[in-house]
Amino acid sequence: MDEQATLLKQEETTKAHELAKKQRDIGVAEFFSRNRHLLGFDNKRKALMTTIKEAVDNSLDACEEARVFPEIFVEVIDMGNERFRVIVEDNGPGIVKAQVPNIFAKLLYGSKFHSMKQSRGQQGIGISASVMYGQLTTGRAARITSKIGKGTKAWYMEVKIDTQKNAPLISESKEVEWDKDQGTRIEIDLEATYMGGNQSIDEYLKETAITNPHATIIYTNPKAEQIIFPKAVDMLPPEPKEIKPHPYGVELGILMMMLKSTESKTLQAFLTTEFTRVGGGTAKQICENAALLPNTKPKALSREQAEQLMEGIKKTKLINPPTDCLSPITAEALEKGLRKEVNAEFYTAATRPPAVYRGNPFIIEVGMAYGGSLDREGPLRLIRFANRVPLLFQQGACAVTKSVMQTQWRNYGLSQSKGQLPQGPLVVAIHIASVWVPFTSESKEAIAHYPEIIKEIKLAIQECGRKLGSYVNKKKRLSFENKKRDYITTYLPYVGEALKEILDLKDEDKKRIEENLVVVLEKTRGTLENLEFDPEKNEDYDEEFAKIGKKGEDEEVDE
Amino acid sequence: MDEQATLLKQEETTKAHELAKKQRDIGVAEFFSRNRHLLGFDNKRKALMTTIKEAVDNSLDACEEARVFPEIFVEVIDMGNERFRVIVEDNGPGIVKAQVPNIFAKLLYGSKFHSMKQSRGQQGIGISASVMYGQLTTGRAARITSKIGKGTKAWYMEVKIDTQKNAPLISESKEVEWDKDQGTRIEIDLEATYMGGNQSIDEYLKETAITNPHATIIYTNPKAEQIIFPKAVDMLPPEPKEIKPHPYGVELGILMMMLKSTESKTLQAFLTTEFTRVGGGTAKQICENAALLPNTKPKALSREQAEQLMEGIKKTKLINPPTDCLSPITAEALEKGLRKEVNAEFYTAATRPPAVYRGNPFIIEVGMAYGGSLDREGPLRLIRFANRVPLLFQQGACAVTKSVMQTQWRNYGLSQSKGQLPQGPLVVAIHIASVWVPFTSESKEAIAHYPEIIKEIKLAIQECGRKLGSYVNKKKRLSFENKKRDYITTYLPYVGEALKEILDLKDEDKKRIEENLVVVLEKTRGTLENLEFDPEKNEDYDEEFAKIGKKGEDEEVDE
Repeated sequence: MDEQATLLKQEETTKAHELAKKQRDIGVAEFFSRNRHLLGFDNKRKALMTTIKEAVDNSLDACEEARVFPEIFVEVIDMGNERFRVIVEDNGPGIVKAQVPNIFAKLLYGSKFHSMKQSRGQQGIGISASVMYGQLTTGRAARITSKIGKGTKAWYMEVKIDTQKNAPLISESKEVEWDKDQGTRIEIDLEATYMGGNQSIDEYLKETAITNPHATIIYTNPKAEQIIFPKAVDMLPPEPKEIKPHPYGVELGILMMMLKSTESKTLQAFLTTEFTRVGGGTAKQICENAALLPNTKPKALSREQAEQLMEGIKKTKLINPPTDCLSPITAEALEKGLRKEVNAEFYTAATRPPAVYRGNPFIIEVGMAYGGSLDREGPLRLIRFANRVPLLFQQGACAVTKSVMQTQWRNYGLSQSKGQLPQGPLVVAIHIASVWVPFTSESKEAIAHYPEIIKEIKLAIQECGRKLGSYVNKKKRLSFENKKRDYITTYLPYVGEALKEILDLKDEDKKRIEENLVVVLEKTRGTLENLEFDPEKNEDYDEEFAKIGKKGEDEEVDE
Repeated sequence: MDEQATLLKQEETTKAHELAKKQRDIGVAEFFSRNRHLLGFDNKRKALMTTIKEAVDNSLDACEEARVFPEIFVEVIDMGNERFRVIVEDNGPGIVKAQVPNIFAKLLYGSKFHSMKQSRGQQGIGISASVMYGQLTTGRAARITSKIGKGTKAWYMEVKIDTQKNAPLISESKEVEWDKDQGTRIEIDLEATYMGGNQSIDEYLKETAITNPHATIIYTNPKAEQIIFPKAVDMLPPEPKEIKPHPYGVELGILMMMLKSTESKTLQAFLTTEFTRVGGGTAKQICENAALLPNTKPKALSREQAEQLMEGIKKTKLINPPTDCLSPITAEALEKGLRKEVNAEFYTAATRPPAVYRGNPFIIEVGMAYGGSLDREGPLRLIRFANRVPLLFQQGACAVTKSVMQTQWRNYGLSQSKGQLPQGPLVVAIHIASVWVPFTSESKEAIAHYPEIIKEIKLAIQECGRKLGSYVNKKKRLSFENKKRDYITTYLPYVGEALKEILDLKDEDKKRIEENLVVVLEKTRGTLENLEFDPEKNEDYDEEFAKIGKKGEDEEVDE
């Protein structure tokens, strides 16, 4: 007993015990308040942009869920001394009173995380982060007004976040009159700076209007100027359907958790109930390939058997996930948007078939605009979208940028240093639509480097690139041809004059000979070019592309 | 009443009510398990690297806290089929039994988040994320053995994370024999791929050894080869002290929270107790500048008064935060490390004085190695460290990279395209030491773009750059001089021969004249160069630098 006591006493004085006293839970809001750059608040300029983006994204999501054409008012008021008031108001379905505090003043709370369908928000962090940033920098609560339908009253609330508990603090809550059928309005005061340029609110709203032509956005900037982005189409985008996970890409650990928590009584039922694209026949085949009986109880499966099941899934041929969980912009709309926005001479766009990363379906779309009044100097302009939301920051960290850099743009007639962005009068817009967009941080500014995503982006670029390449090379050929034509028109009169002298011709003979010469020379011109001009030889790029495509597939995607 | 009832019924059938049913909490572990790329698990190669990094970082932190020289064993075993076993064992203080499950199987749990002092870990996420990744990909629990002192028994546990609840699940827990005084050992099985190169485990451990010369690291790779990084110094780095926040950089919202929760009875006491660098006199001065009475009750301050207090702080001149919370590598050690590691001809290093971003003190250190056997083609090689930990990924997203790109390297004799990395045989190592390093994601791979940090990095680069510039230009001058000398040695004999013929000289006369010519020409050489060679004119860079420094300060730091 004595020895035990000594041991115990000794134990309690160790360094380990001293350290143990400091160990404790870290609150989610505490964590993000210190790491606010993760949420897009690393400087005052971005803070303003991020706040507007989060509010507008939520408004668009809400309106689409309720199937109404979004009408969104955005107002930024300069309060002096680097303080701004942001107001965003929509005509969406509104939010029930009880949910307002949680939605606006609690991190990791929302409806979109647990549903597998495309939406702008997904994490349940964004707008509460803006409320938190506003409160940290100005000490003021966010003001929310919401009305959920014609016959109801509007409700007004002032909320802050208790950052230690990650829980809402309500400082005001009352019924108010609001001359509007339904909608939500949020007002946040925050420390910020307002600037124009490529990463400005104006640019964000302009790009948002391109990918959301069904929305009306009315923006009043700090100079009290109003800019209206009117609705451009009379159709809402199709409503994305919620789906179940696809068996490919589900991991062992997740599968084991699903097996434990399922209500299905047999393995076959489990497979058909919990996954998409698995009917009775396919489920049986998976079981057969896994050497497991279809009527095994899911809860009874051991780790080893779950691993067998994984192997069985891998061996079974399955249809790709359904695409109705996604709402791509479509190639036509993307091209139309570029034509409206960018003054170029050549446009093209493509939508890839859906693909899967880690069980999540996604679609890549690419649009290109070339030539015209676009800047001939410097690199291409890259416009990135994720679930119809423009991404303005962290271009360097984005899988989209990496994919563009890894593409062989020389094949399409553009100059490019190895591993850099290509040079030339080119705008490339790239959209990823997914039930879960893997962003590199909570601020949702750049796409993570998943090999499957990079591969799809490259394939989409190649699809458009081939058309671009034909155009660029044709243009080069034409300009070459025109130059020749110019030579003929310029020098032929002199040739005529010389011949006239040598052969002692009459004026009409000279004219006839000149005309004949033009015809003969025009004829040979084509033939000559084919022999001389290089790009022509490469017009059929298919073999080249097949190689590149293959290379892309084998390549280890590095960071 | 009827109207009320109708209204109520109507209310419950609105879209808002339907949406409300889906709103709910999102678990932290759930969040990160879906967003595992935020934690450094976006591909199999990185997964292995990240797991080792998190375990080794923890071991180094633990050993230093207990003031023992770290002896760390790292072993990676290839289990086939893209599965690996990672084992990391240290001689640190160990972990008390009750804390093991929380430390290894609960996200956002730890001792370092709440203390303001430099450490490698800070978020309480890393190692639990590795355990979670291992369990998701292989279904297996992590195995931990820990012993907290000589007289005690070791304890063995197997843990997983309940990802829905973010809580540990213990599947085994028992006393075991361990032939070791103290330490911790962790074994994790995970899906991964093993590769060499710039972002490999070997590289990470090599760079770790450079910045941690007090540690011994013994690494057994999947080919069962053992690589030993022996301890190189007999001194532990000074123990960083915990500090309180500095008043500059504290924000209004945080200040208001501190005022509410303080135990101090007066404003003056609050200021001296809760902040660093505020004595009684300074506190009074702050109060005076804020037009507040020093004996005001902190809890009684309104938002407006807190804002006054902020203004008062801004107006008061305060000493920079103490630096003993930081443990820089030191310029000498950094240069020594580079000399050991990099085969170059010129080395230099600098440590900046401490600076502050958002209230957090930090120090920037830069080391450079130039010439020698370094690659003359392509861009410089950039080595990044944060709190002595090498950063191998996401170079493009890092504030360090941005600062290097924004530096005018042509001033130092290197070629550089606008806004790109400079070209040349150069290695630049940059270290940020801070009580809180602002990483761009939870995976701690890149530094966020805080303007204060970018500015300091640029200043540190300029400090070393000036010395580098002198060297590079001197070298250019020497090579020019040598070329001339070559001409003299090559052509003089012919001149001699010609003179001999023309003047009909004897052989000894010819020899004498040749020698005289060498002397005369060597003398004029210097003078000629001064007239012809450009860099000489620029040797005094100071004015130029003053301009650059100033420009850097005024510049809006964009993303």
